[in-house]
Amino acid sequence: MRIAELSRLSGVPAPTIKYYVRESLLAPGERTSRNQAQYDERHVTRLRLIRALLEVGGLSVAAVRDVIAALDSPETGTHKVLGAAQQTVTATGVAGHHDEPCHQEAVAEIRALVERQGWTVSEHSPALTAAAEVLGALRRLGQDDFADRLDAYARAADAVAATDLEIVRKRPDADSMAEAVILGNILGDALLAALRRLAQVHRSGRLFE
Amino acid sequence: MRIAELSRLSGVPAPTIKYYVRESLLAPGERTSRNQAQYDERHVTRLRLIRALLEVGGLSVAAVRDVIAALDSPETGTHKVLGAAQQTVTATGVAGHHDEPCHQEAVAEIRALVERQGWTVSEHSPALTAAAEVLGALRRLGQDDFADRLDAYARAADAVAATDLEIVRKRPDADSMAEAVILGNILGDALLAALRRLAQVHRSGRLFE
Repeated sequence: MRIAELSRLSGVPAPTIKYYVRESLLAPGERTSRNQAQYDERHVTRLRLIRALLEVGGLSVAAVRDVIAALDSPETGTHKVLGAAQQTVTATGVAGHHDEPCHQEAVAEIRALVERQGWTVSEHSPALTAAAEVLGALRRLGQDDFADRLDAYARAADAVAATDLEIVRKRPDADSMAEAVILGNILGDALLAALRRLAQVHRSGRLFE
Repeated sequence: MRIAELSRLSGVPAPTIKYYVRESLLAPGERTSRNQAQYDERHVTRLRLIRALLEVGGLSVAAVRDVIAALDSPETGTHKVLGAAQQTVTATGVAGHHDEPCHQEAVAEIRALVERQGWTVSEHSPALTAAAEVLGALRRLGQDDFADRLDAYARAADAVAATDLEIVRKRPDADSMAEAVILGNILGDALLAALRRLAQVHRSGRLFE
């Protein structure tokens, strides 16, 4: 298909498509003449992923380029692709206090939690640092009763991850798996937050009314 | 105690404390002379809540004033206070598309979910709208496999809410309960997100390596 058709199918304006090609987010079409190129179905899929990363995920163009590069790297297995996709969505929004002694304590607490849950996770996993940051913030704010219920929260998080992975493994190809990891995490966090509040409203009504 | 002692105990500079009093976030101290006022333990607790709302929660001064007003309103029961606290933390970050027909469909889907789970939730609950917004975004992006697993996510969210409420009900007073609802939701979402990614890393390693 020509760029006009690609633009129509994807909903992305032609100048934007050309910009993505210049920025190495999208592979160039196959050149058929000096001013024309042919695109195919893979370009449509890839454009959907790019738009989702930029608009829903709020990623920068450089971060999108990293995800795409991981996807297209020939030697990466599925686990590596998912790892790369996952690292793009591991920001917690909690300011880091990595130099404080309490951060090292929080890291040790999360490592102990990981061990209790029987999880195999690299020491350098950004998710481990992210969890330690939030735990540190809870302790600094005197919310120790939350910090003391880590195992209950970890069990619920594991149930969520089990559902996430069931969805991911049923996807037909690596692009679509990466899309599930990224959108599933970004939108899934928001979905879970909203469902958690719905369940809170229900339970709070039963407890206190 | 005098303002210098309140500042030392709370870590909040005296001019900032005076600003909070002017903005009706903090009750004025009891005036003992033209230039002096006495503060007590409740001022220390309240300052901690105000700082947490502003800094961790990222709320505006006006939003903090609303939470404080709900806390201090004499006729509000615990459920109402928790409701007011909860409404401050129900933003999803997903742009609203309330005028689109698919939003109404998503609202109907979430209502059906709430019914299947046996939850009692007001039709006007902001959490219901928030959940519908995320569901609509997932459907628009073609992530129907996530949307089709709503019940699994709702069960996990309910387990999280059960732990949340256990923590809240053990708090000694309404201020501290509201603090648990607000910090528990804001920091708790980040904690859950990080734990979910840790569990994903573990499960993804087992599945794909």
